[in-house]
Amino acid sequence: MKQWELQCSRCSARLPFRYQDMKCACGGTLLVDYDLEHVAKTFTKASLQLRYPSMWRYQELLPLQDKASIISLGEGWTPLLRMPTWESKLSLKRLWIKREEQNPTGSFKSRGFSVAVSLLKEAGATKAAVPSNGNAAGALAAYAGRAGIQAFVFIPMDCPSLIVDECPLYGATTVLVDGFIHDAAAIIESGRKEQGWVNVGTLKEPGRVEGKKTMGLELAEQLGWTFPDVIIYPTGGGSGIIGMWKSFLELKKLGFIEGDMPRFVCVQESGCQPIVDGLGQPMAVTPTHDSDASLAPEPHKIIPNPTGMRVPNPPDLELLLSIVKQSGGTAIAVSKEQIAQATQSLGAEGISSSPEGAATWAAMLVLCDTGWLRSTDSVVLFNTSHAMKYAKLGASAAIPIIKTYEEFMVYRNI
Amino acid sequence: MKQWELQCSRCSARLPFRYQDMKCACGGTLLVDYDLEHVAKTFTKASLQLRYPSMWRYQELLPLQDKASIISLGEGWTPLLRMPTWESKLSLKRLWIKREEQNPTGSFKSRGFSVAVSLLKEAGATKAAVPSNGNAAGALAAYAGRAGIQAFVFIPMDCPSLIVDECPLYGATTVLVDGFIHDAAAIIESGRKEQGWVNVGTLKEPGRVEGKKTMGLELAEQLGWTFPDVIIYPTGGGSGIIGMWKSFLELKKLGFIEGDMPRFVCVQESGCQPIVDGLGQPMAVTPTHDSDASLAPEPHKIIPNPTGMRVPNPPDLELLLSIVKQSGGTAIAVSKEQIAQATQSLGAEGISSSPEGAATWAAMLVLCDTGWLRSTDSVVLFNTSHAMKYAKLGASAAIPIIKTYEEFMVYRNI
Repeated sequence: MKQWELQCSRCSARLPFRYQDMKCACGGTLLVDYDLEHVAKTFTKASLQLRYPSMWRYQELLPLQDKASIISLGEGWTPLLRMPTWESKLSLKRLWIKREEQNPTGSFKSRGFSVAVSLLKEAGATKAAVPSNGNAAGALAAYAGRAGIQAFVFIPMDCPSLIVDECPLYGATTVLVDGFIHDAAAIIESGRKEQGWVNVGTLKEPGRVEGKKTMGLELAEQLGWTFPDVIIYPTGGGSGIIGMWKSFLELKKLGFIEGDMPRFVCVQESGCQPIVDGLGQPMAVTPTHDSDASLAPEPHKIIPNPTGMRVPNPPDLELLLSIVKQSGGTAIAVSKEQIAQATQSLGAEGISSSPEGAATWAAMLVLCDTGWLRSTDSVVLFNTSHAMKYAKLGASAAIPIIKTYEEFMVYRNI
Repeated sequence: MKQWELQCSRCSARLPFRYQDMKCACGGTLLVDYDLEHVAKTFTKASLQLRYPSMWRYQELLPLQDKASIISLGEGWTPLLRMPTWESKLSLKRLWIKREEQNPTGSFKSRGFSVAVSLLKEAGATKAAVPSNGNAAGALAAYAGRAGIQAFVFIPMDCPSLIVDECPLYGATTVLVDGFIHDAAAIIESGRKEQGWVNVGTLKEPGRVEGKKTMGLELAEQLGWTFPDVIIYPTGGGSGIIGMWKSFLELKKLGFIEGDMPRFVCVQESGCQPIVDGLGQPMAVTPTHDSDASLAPEPHKIIPNPTGMRVPNPPDLELLLSIVKQSGGTAIAVSKEQIAQATQSLGAEGISSSPEGAATWAAMLVLCDTGWLRSTDSVVLFNTSHAMKYAKLGASAAIPIIKTYEEFMVYRNI
């Protein structure tokens, strides 16, 4: 085979590599398949130890012809932060948070777009468009800016305004859409040919899954080439789940790691929970402690927040469900209130979390409470972005204004 | 000598190490002095190559007794991004941007507070206070939260509200001050004894300079143990300049690097420019191109923005000026308009910059224009934080809202 080809994740059909249109004739999603014998010649644990800490250290497992085509802004190799206090509190063997907000565009989306835009550049494409709840739009805008490619981003109008604002800063043509992310996607499909856009939406091209894959490679390397027992991940379109699963299979085939794959937990927000519903076995999320009863997720009547998890129609739900099931994982929906409380808990630990990142914390608490997580489990949560991106001004209206220490004391005594 | 002691940067007096009160009897600033013979036993280029990419890889040059005391949130080892397109445009040998906004609290302040709070923890301190234009407050709040230390932050009331808002999220007692950063500092000094606060303001304790020092160590290592010719750095209190200068001297003494030290350029905003004024040789900043005349910095009548550069009374101006002069560097004040334009230029390259980071870009353009920067110079700029921290809502009011591709076309044709 060539260095890499495409293979259908549903019917296993094989096709030559291309940088767009990832739908197989059977309806399945095409994924990049590497000649691992070739990869193994240079991709070794020893060689990796001496490479620069960036996601591009995994270059043999990324589908770029020429290193010179890499469009990088400094993405990847984000910290994996251990949470020892909470390990004790929750009786978990290990608890880590992968701090993806420390990527160049302030979110995990940097990874996928570094690869996707590098592929566009290598192919000579000049215009790219994406439907996005915000962070993907910012990432396309930034990487396209760096590459000299024109970016067009389409964002549901209720998405966080600060994230929207960064897109024109990066030079993208930015449009708000009166609808959901799939409505934005439909607009792009309508105009794609006329405008000459490459659609870089979720699973529309190979780069984003491959880029997200590096989260899995990095996690395994940071854990000394082992897998954690459980990965809790906020899930919208699901390319992160697909990418990490794929990366772990590649590492097993390369002989880097043996043993069980991690159990994947997809976290969604109540009211938009196609993966939870798709699993058909909604887990009992009612906490066992009475005091926590008010935190129990409410049913579908709730309108979810406009976060990256709000994807009513994931592009390949079948593939996502298959991965979660194979892994022995589950899916769980958490409420706005649980997310808000988790944001505070993470804040008190010095971590600024996105609602999506906080949702993984909220899910972890429920899974501990129901006994799904065990004291033998090592668990990794993903903080995909930071709180500021979702901030609203005026939150601090209650902060006192003083001129002297005496005024401070008056305030303290109120 | 002990593993490390304090030494006065003015009169060279030596004192035992302590974690607060860095003022020598002579009025000079006390800095940490290491037993470099002891350091050299384990701190080698070869040993560093195998260490984890975090600022704590330089542990022998950080004044902590016990590794177990380290309070880390994943700081340091930020990307050094090369800017090849602009190297050609500006005829510079090399141009890099150090992306300090990728630290855990979204700014370079993470480094200093990781060390400062670790020292507090090691000493058993329970309360810390800081006067800050914003990012230092957020960093103290976050690291104190992680350490279980109570944080009290005092911020001038006109500082960016999103940065202020993060402090209570991290659990800090947050107070706005009707005045400048030195007014906030005065309030802390008034209450310090009564409240039991350790003042972790600039140059009040040893940790922040030592933490900032890692920017210099990291830069030298990322450049293959060489110095750049020029470092352009946004300067407020100046602990970054003092720290990097100190790190380079340590590397020279350790035999890691030979040759000339980098020339340090301090960048300030017109209207608050004590370093520019202190140098007494204000450089000619009038651009040579007529078209750029409108960008020339205006004199002192301007009120500067509330950024980290707005420090009217740096705690040790004498030391700062001495470093800039010894290095063969300079200082330059840029205008609000130059900063705004630089923010756009960096944005178009995919980089979200703070006003402070953008100021270094603006300064670089002037220094190229006047010929102070030469085609043989390799230059490093510091982007100390990202644009979102300084964002105001409503910026995107002009972004169109559409429902269909046809509406997009109408908008495009306007």
